[in-house]
Amino acid sequence: MHKYSEQKVSVAVVGARGYSGLELVRLLLKHPGVKIAACLATDAAFQLSDYLPEAAARAVPVASVKDFSRILSDIQVVFLATPAEASIGLAQEALARGVKVIDLSGAFRLSPEQAAKHYGVQGEALKTLADAQYGLVPWAGPLAAKTHLLSNPGCYATSVLMALIPLVKEGLIDADSIVVDAKSGATGAGRKAAENLLFCEVDGECLPYKVGDHQHLPEIIEALHHYTGVSATPAFSTHLLPVRRGIISSIYARVANSQVDETALDAAYAKAYSNYPLARWGRIDPKDRFAMSLKRIAGSARTEIRYTIRGKQIYLFSLIDNLLKGAASQAVENFNRMQDFPVQTALEQVEGVL
Amino acid sequence: MHKYSEQKVSVAVVGARGYSGLELVRLLLKHPGVKIAACLATDAAFQLSDYLPEAAARAVPVASVKDFSRILSDIQVVFLATPAEASIGLAQEALARGVKVIDLSGAFRLSPEQAAKHYGVQGEALKTLADAQYGLVPWAGPLAAKTHLLSNPGCYATSVLMALIPLVKEGLIDADSIVVDAKSGATGAGRKAAENLLFCEVDGECLPYKVGDHQHLPEIIEALHHYTGVSATPAFSTHLLPVRRGIISSIYARVANSQVDETALDAAYAKAYSNYPLARWGRIDPKDRFAMSLKRIAGSARTEIRYTIRGKQIYLFSLIDNLLKGAASQAVENFNRMQDFPVQTALEQVEGVL
Amino acid sequence: MHKYSEQKVSVAVVGARGYSGLELVRLLLKHPGVKIAACLATDAAFQLSDYLPEAAARAVPVASVKDFSRILSDIQVVFLATPAEASIGLAQEALARGVKVIDLSGAFRLSPEQAAKHYGVQGEALKTLADAQYGLVPWAGPLAAKTHLLSNPGCYATSVLMALIPLVKEGLIDADSIVVDAKSGATGAGRKAAENLLFCEVDGECLPYKVGDHQHLPEIIEALHHYTGVSATPAFSTHLLPVRRGIISSIYARVANSQVDETALDAAYAKAYSNYPLARWGRIDPKDRFAMSLKRIAGSARTEIRYTIRGKQIYLFSLIDNLLKGAASQAVENFNRMQDFPVQTALEQVEGVL
Amino acid sequence: MHKYSEQKVSVAVVGARGYSGLELVRLLLKHPGVKIAACLATDAAFQLSDYLPEAAARAVPVASVKDFSRILSDIQVVFLATPAEASIGLAQEALARGVKVIDLSGAFRLSPEQAAKHYGVQGEALKTLADAQYGLVPWAGPLAAKTHLLSNPGCYATSVLMALIPLVKEGLIDADSIVVDAKSGATGAGRKAAENLLFCEVDGECLPYKVGDHQHLPEIIEALHHYTGVSATPAFSTHLLPVRRGIISSIYARVANSQVDETALDAAYAKAYSNYPLARWGRIDPKDRFAMSLKRIAGSARTEIRYTIRGKQIYLFSLIDNLLKGAASQAVENFNRMQDFPVQTALEQVEGVL
Repeated sequence: MHKYSEQKVSVAVVGARGYSGLELVRLLLKHPGVKIAACLATDAAFQLSDYLPEAAARAVPVASVKDFSRILSDIQVVFLATPAEASIGLAQEALARGVKVIDLSGAFRLSPEQAAKHYGVQGEALKTLADAQYGLVPWAGPLAAKTHLLSNPGCYATSVLMALIPLVKEGLIDADSIVVDAKSGATGAGRKAAENLLFCEVDGECLPYKVGDHQHLPEIIEALHHYTGVSATPAFSTHLLPVRRGIISSIYARVANSQVDETALDAAYAKAYSNYPLARWGRIDPKDRFAMSLKRIAGSARTEIRYTIRGKQIYLFSLIDNLLKGAASQAVENFNRMQDFPVQTALEQVEGVL
Repeated sequence: MHKYSEQKVSVAVVGARGYSGLELVRLLLKHPGVKIAACLATDAAFQLSDYLPEAAARAVPVASVKDFSRILSDIQVVFLATPAEASIGLAQEALARGVKVIDLSGAFRLSPEQAAKHYGVQGEALKTLADAQYGLVPWAGPLAAKTHLLSNPGCYATSVLMALIPLVKEGLIDADSIVVDAKSGATGAGRKAAENLLFCEVDGECLPYKVGDHQHLPEIIEALHHYTGVSATPAFSTHLLPVRRGIISSIYARVANSQVDETALDAAYAKAYSNYPLARWGRIDPKDRFAMSLKRIAGSARTEIRYTIRGKQIYLFSLIDNLLKGAASQAVENFNRMQDFPVQTALEQVEGVL
Repeated sequence: MHKYSEQKVSVAVVGARGYSGLELVRLLLKHPGVKIAACLATDAAFQLSDYLPEAAARAVPVASVKDFSRILSDIQVVFLATPAEASIGLAQEALARGVKVIDLSGAFRLSPEQAAKHYGVQGEALKTLADAQYGLVPWAGPLAAKTHLLSNPGCYATSVLMALIPLVKEGLIDADSIVVDAKSGATGAGRKAAENLLFCEVDGECLPYKVGDHQHLPEIIEALHHYTGVSATPAFSTHLLPVRRGIISSIYARVANSQVDETALDAAYAKAYSNYPLARWGRIDPKDRFAMSLKRIAGSARTEIRYTIRGKQIYLFSLIDNLLKGAASQAVENFNRMQDFPVQTALEQVEGVL
Repeated sequence: MHKYSEQKVSVAVVGARGYSGLELVRLLLKHPGVKIAACLATDAAFQLSDYLPEAAARAVPVASVKDFSRILSDIQVVFLATPAEASIGLAQEALARGVKVIDLSGAFRLSPEQAAKHYGVQGEALKTLADAQYGLVPWAGPLAAKTHLLSNPGCYATSVLMALIPLVKEGLIDADSIVVDAKSGATGAGRKAAENLLFCEVDGECLPYKVGDHQHLPEIIEALHHYTGVSATPAFSTHLLPVRRGIISSIYARVANSQVDETALDAAYAKAYSNYPLARWGRIDPKDRFAMSLKRIAGSARTEIRYTIRGKQIYLFSLIDNLLKGAASQAVENFNRMQDFPVQTALEQVEGVL
């Protein structure tokens, strides 16, 4: 275990002005074992304190992404909260300089073929990809000493995998019958000035997008196989909600056989997550009004899983904050694993803000 | 066909202060063959013009539900935009007095057993139920002369059935594989002062409710069988959106066989709806940003159906305005059928209001 | 009065893809005396039917703004729903070609000095400005035969002037004491991809902007003086609401003397608007829940004015739909004046949509 | 100063299920000098952990309001997050039993005449009122030893007074010219099932209410006089926003004389709040996008004040979280004063959650 008496780990965050990047900085500011050496953004006029009111934010040095090479000398770990096309080059440079990388983009999540197709990974980057570890916590195994690149899972993929893996591993569901209907708050699309993300466009909608074509589907398929050995191709669609934060994945599957009941689901989740402090699960209880509340999960590093069975049909709901377990807090979990901190360090959030 | 030179049909609307009731009054005010003899509400202080700014609204007599018996003398058709427990008695009384009934509640939609379970229909009311016709337009057949009670379909059921019937009838989908993930704007819950419908509770959420237990599921099962002869029990869940109006049902099913392609779906919908002016359908086109927009369907009497196939999986999206095709405008369609007006009379709405 | 037996007036709309431009096209499609010869947009791929579901929209020819010169041969009136910097040149070209212009931008609303400062009007354009008539309806007087350029008022300015002019004209308020706190739905900022207009930025806010510096303040000052002869410099601030449509201007002023009571206000508004079909006014009545509802004004061409007096203080609320009376429908009013149609032609909207 | 080695102060919260009550419990759970002996609610089925996910919430005993008398034996201080009509009796009983009271209702905020009119205070309760101290922090002076009843200010009143007092005290503004246009998130109305607070009613609105008649106006007038010696009757109106949390009061006033500039305002606020850790102020800076953000103040115990001068006109904006500085966190400030803790104890919140 990391000893706090040791020196703090010096880190940098690239893409610090984005929605995920800012959450990451906010979390790292409270991490007892971290010193933020620099925050980098493409916008040269960026001031961290314009976005984070905490007094601590004023002390963090801010730099341009152009200063990336220079910054590398000062740090041990870099977080890349950047688009995949930027992450590819930045990760290669950091690794070459001996700096460990936690990448929040999709660049290093998939098999070579899928990574090439969905994120344009090619050439030298394919070698980098081969050395990356996909870090779905707590399913990712212990880090090999040589693991210097952790690939942080996608937000939709995280919400789906956290709910499905325990049931698939235990053989409780018919893997051919899985349907995932996922809905996300609009921060999932990032802080980019796009017409379809304007208030007047998103308000009043629940808009399906990338139907059947979302890049998180191959991630779900590959990771599910990796962690369970089972091959399955769920139906998967995504909807944009008029909500700022949170993902709810509504998942449907048939029971594997008529012996499977809610007690079996209870047991599977208990087996999977009893030793993991950041998941909560249980049967749907109509009296518990907040168990499946997106607002209640917003601001929390937790995964919330709720389920019921009707006849042969399992109804399964998985909720995360897309900016936290779906991005920033899982990146901190991966950092904690990499540096031997308890996995939930810096992640005990105020929860349930209205 | 109805001749406009004839006298206008005299009608009343009970439950006129509710969200659906008001929409119904708004539509009927524009109907060239209708005279609204009275609007009834439980709130004695109700003034129609407080809710509808149209000048015509000021001329409509308003009365208490207690005046129901007296009103029946003046009208030929009564619309019941009331809860099922109220509709049961009101419908019986109206029919006994020779007044035709269009009921927007669930009371007369189901088989006796299900009606008893979900809406408390029993005793004499079961005979009334036996004489009711379920009016999903355009699927409901011609009205028998003796049909004096039309039961208007439920909002979720309408959205699901309009999309599924053409595919099931043509044998294009595996009826055992159907999953329906439905989401509704908050007007679907009615204008009742309930804590869970407060702004601060609904905002920021996409809340699953009545998972696996919604009373529209037996309605879907029974109507699907009635119109297609096929028995199926879809998975069905409903979510409350932070949106005022509109339902989107995201529907998932496997193709019946490997010959089924998008062309077959095109043909099935064309066959079903080419002669029906209030449906639109087509393949999902990422460039067509508004085809699956809830805002665009709000205020419209239309049903919008969009689909694509990936491998063996059909993705199907059905959008309606829950207060119109899901309640008031379908009630007017049923009135038009009953009185021999063209089905879309009074339903050419302004559409696409931002 | 215009005779409908005459040929329809051939018009074009430039900027037809914007929020105001689309509303204008929607209104003109229903105008019995109008033929839309073309809709122009900067986006070459623009299809009107992607935005307007009405069948009539499919028949309207669409062209690029680059085709402006060519289009002028076919039309009698052009509506410019374009930014001021574009309107300046387009208006000059149209007028030179003998085509009448209704401009929705701010370019031709102000005195030369203010127009230069706020909208960059200079050189030849100052002569064009001198020939423009500012068209606040119903206050703008009869059109001179030579008036070929109508300048449509700004949205905030319209809401404020419609409420203030009757009181200032009748000497009922202390003009030195006026404070205007205006709030607008986000469509007021146009359909431009700007970071500060993203859903996640606007939701949850009521953000003051351009405090004391808004370009509609000189418009209010100059127009108030023009229509009443009174000079006043109100305090004026604007707020962005998490709402799509509608402006509410909350206006505060002292009574001119102790004789001024609510009856005097009633009389002033009756005198001003009794013959104008698109205004409604009255005292604040706590029982009338919808009189000051933004939702109820959305979709309406109306101006709604409500007021009360407490001691020496007048509280005055003016509501319009920023896209209609604040832009498109007032442009149609100006067109109707120019072409001798009744002022409300094509403006009887469905109102009060929830 | 309170010594933490001493025993913790035993407290109870009445009205713990309300929006303000829950925030208060959340804050007290983190207070190092507090032990929550009980949370009382009118709903007997109330479970604190249904609302607060923190593990600590599960250990707090919950009771019915009927158990109030019994609970008093176990506590030193009681927080009343109850309506005024309930607070009156509860406060009297607690004081009679030697338990100190911090009351969040309006019951004990006003002079006897106003308290009778607005909150129905009469008889014995008027004596209780005479012993109450109004606790606007930091303006309230040191507590007399005999002060056992602290009256927590109203949310609107707090936001207005925090901004106005420094300027009025320094004679910088014309007190006769003050206009306050206040807007509040819907939690301000409490968690009560009222039709006008439903999502579908509040969404899309910015609804003026209680215009000129709000009970916080006499509170502002009396407290302003109490703390500054100046009598003034501002114009005051309140609007309901489609937002969950936060109040923004837009305040307008004339400068007292032509020497008053922004530097004078800077100095007045620095003098008032330099030693108070929970206020921030400054000139409006268009580049600082978040200074006047309601979202950024939500979850914070801070008051944010921004201002500018144009000619003779001061524009002043005051933002607070209505549930925190407007209720729960100011109650904790008052508790901290009463018990000799540093004023900001337990109030260093995570801020700026999106």
